[in-house]
Amino acid sequence: MTEETLAIASRSSASESGDPAVGGRPSAVAESARHVRFVLTDSDGVLTDNGVYYSAAGEEMKRFSIRDGMGVERLRVCAGIEVGIITGEHSGAVQRRAEKLGITELHLGSRDKVAVLDEVLARRGLTAAQVAYIGDDTNDVAVMRRVGLAGCPADATPFARAVAHYVCPSRGGYGAFRDFAEFIIAAQTVID
Amino acid sequence: MTEETLAIASRSSASESGDPAVGGRPSAVAESARHVRFVLTDSDGVLTDNGVYYSAAGEEMKRFSIRDGMGVERLRVCAGIEVGIITGEHSGAVQRRAEKLGITELHLGSRDKVAVLDEVLARRGLTAAQVAYIGDDTNDVAVMRRVGLAGCPADATPFARAVAHYVCPSRGGYGAFRDFAEFIIAAQTVID
Amino acid sequence: MTEETLAIASRSSASESGDPAVGGRPSAVAESARHVRFVLTDSDGVLTDNGVYYSAAGEEMKRFSIRDGMGVERLRVCAGIEVGIITGEHSGAVQRRAEKLGITELHLGSRDKVAVLDEVLARRGLTAAQVAYIGDDTNDVAVMRRVGLAGCPADATPFARAVAHYVCPSRGGYGAFRDFAEFIIAAQTVID
Amino acid sequence: MTEETLAIASRSSASESGDPAVGGRPSAVAESARHVRFVLTDSDGVLTDNGVYYSAAGEEMKRFSIRDGMGVERLRVCAGIEVGIITGEHSGAVQRRAEKLGITELHLGSRDKVAVLDEVLARRGLTAAQVAYIGDDTNDVAVMRRVGLAGCPADATPFARAVAHYVCPSRGGYGAFRDFAEFIIAAQTVID
Repeated sequence: MTEETLAIASRSSASESGDPAVGGRPSAVAESARHVRFVLTDSDGVLTDNGVYYSAAGEEMKRFSIRDGMGVERLRVCAGIEVGIITGEHSGAVQRRAEKLGITELHLGSRDKVAVLDEVLARRGLTAAQVAYIGDDTNDVAVMRRVGLAGCPADATPFARAVAHYVCPSRGGYGAFRDFAEFIIAAQTVID
Repeated sequence: MTEETLAIASRSSASESGDPAVGGRPSAVAESARHVRFVLTDSDGVLTDNGVYYSAAGEEMKRFSIRDGMGVERLRVCAGIEVGIITGEHSGAVQRRAEKLGITELHLGSRDKVAVLDEVLARRGLTAAQVAYIGDDTNDVAVMRRVGLAGCPADATPFARAVAHYVCPSRGGYGAFRDFAEFIIAAQTVID
Repeated sequence: MTEETLAIASRSSASESGDPAVGGRPSAVAESARHVRFVLTDSDGVLTDNGVYYSAAGEEMKRFSIRDGMGVERLRVCAGIEVGIITGEHSGAVQRRAEKLGITELHLGSRDKVAVLDEVLARRGLTAAQVAYIGDDTNDVAVMRRVGLAGCPADATPFARAVAHYVCPSRGGYGAFRDFAEFIIAAQTVID
Repeated sequence: MTEETLAIASRSSASESGDPAVGGRPSAVAESARHVRFVLTDSDGVLTDNGVYYSAAGEEMKRFSIRDGMGVERLRVCAGIEVGIITGEHSGAVQRRAEKLGITELHLGSRDKVAVLDEVLARRGLTAAQVAYIGDDTNDVAVMRRVGLAGCPADATPFARAVAHYVCPSRGGYGAFRDFAEFIIAAQTVID
């Protein structure tokens, strides 16, 4: 999270920035962020820096960020928005982290993320335009093309960057999710 | 810790720097640092880089810095100042780290950090002006506004940066606390 | 993986770049990449950032990247190319990571990597020109000189850089192998 | 380890560099490196990035670099120089890492590093001018002032930088020791 993400919260007009996503006058992207009612996130490369720690016994650990955890809490408290996780991996570490953050919409081992998205939309009675998704790699691209607001970390693959509406100033595992959360919170709480 | 933090220790006058916090002639911020008798610090994002390592069994580890540990020791030896920790999280790792560093003023799971500060001030017979605090996120802002000297790591959130008197050259978990400690030590040991 | 690695996939001609390895018109290096039928990689410094985590019980963990794992999968799916690992170390962590990625050509504790290469070539009926290798240090140099396409991470030693045909934009453990994989995939799937 | 450290090995004269430590014509610092017969190193901040991983059970792990391990091996093989470790901490992780690298001169929990140096010099029949030392913090300064060649990582404290003859291009835990080793190897193997 950098100065830019906060900036949109403290200014209600007057665009000093050429970047459409972070300008003061609500841009098309910020406008999309206003309609978000649910946030879905990839795990590896977004909530983590893609690192996976192995011992001689196999996969042991993943590293998450307390700052992102605060983002989950602030989305809930400041904007009434819940968060879900869709990941291609099976990982007990992700499961425990989700529990800690009170995230119940958790999809592990998802080979087809669009199918998961469609099921979530139907069950929750949401349109794709009401969902934000943040991912970093090829298996996120199809979902990113479907949702109303697509984000990616600063160090996402070019595949994800090419379809993202909002590129976070921070890297995955180092506050990218928090950037995304603050961008949405700001868009929903700023009064013109 | 960078050249700037040392600079104030080796120069007693003549400001070559435009930064009020690190100038040679004791600035208002250095003046505040002279009155500090106790240092309080956040844990996640200051003593760590906000990272939290999970396994399938849950939260496993946090990463601290030996360089910051040396900062706790030097505050004690060079300036007679003790250090306390106030964190919103419950973490056995923080507890063990505090024990290693001889830190007895340890507050885990603090939802209201200002209330903790007030209790510490009353019990220790200190004024807010005699306390320094370093934090990095939204839940640190209220305390930072109360104390005599408020610091934040180089990679703090804009919320914390906006109220900090001193922004450390180093990132959280990579020497930010040490920067803060050396700044205070320098302010108290330089003779005009 | 950066924009450059994707660029070669999306452009089929017109070199805007002065770098022979990433130009649009297939360069000599990209031409070498077209002939690759098998990819061999070092482990420490390529699949990891050279980090090795020790406890009081000895070596515990190494950190790998999910993004590189996706590179192994994409080489297989997009280009029909399998991956092997040759490392000088004995590490159960590498063994478990290889299993997870479906890598069966795994050589641990290899003091003479060229001998391993020769054995692999003979057994698989490949020429050196059909093999790509990525390494980062002195013990990789001899193999890098033998193969058709030699790569190294952005933060490789100067010894490895001096003999690499392709220097990855990413560091070891942070996507270098993925860069190398995408470079090969792009070279093999772009139609002039 | 960067291009500069290799440069001195590949050039035998003609200084293109203004930095006295890395110039082609053996500088005073390279001259000091020629006399080195034994290398001593700090652990935290040199062999590691100062990180120490805690769980609820206490200190668990430290992260070392394979690249530095190769430096210990190359000093031995290329220059016949052994390596020792002097650290202020008590750490089983350092002990296990030293064993792995064949380092027998290991001093844990050293409060007075100069006393350890003097004992090593006397026992091994060496002069201070024949010893190189690399450290990063205040408790390394006195030893750094005594030895013939003093190095520090790129991210050392200003206290250590102020007395170092050679500042490594790499950070602690990310190749700083290897830089130092290659600098010494190059100084001893280049023929004018």
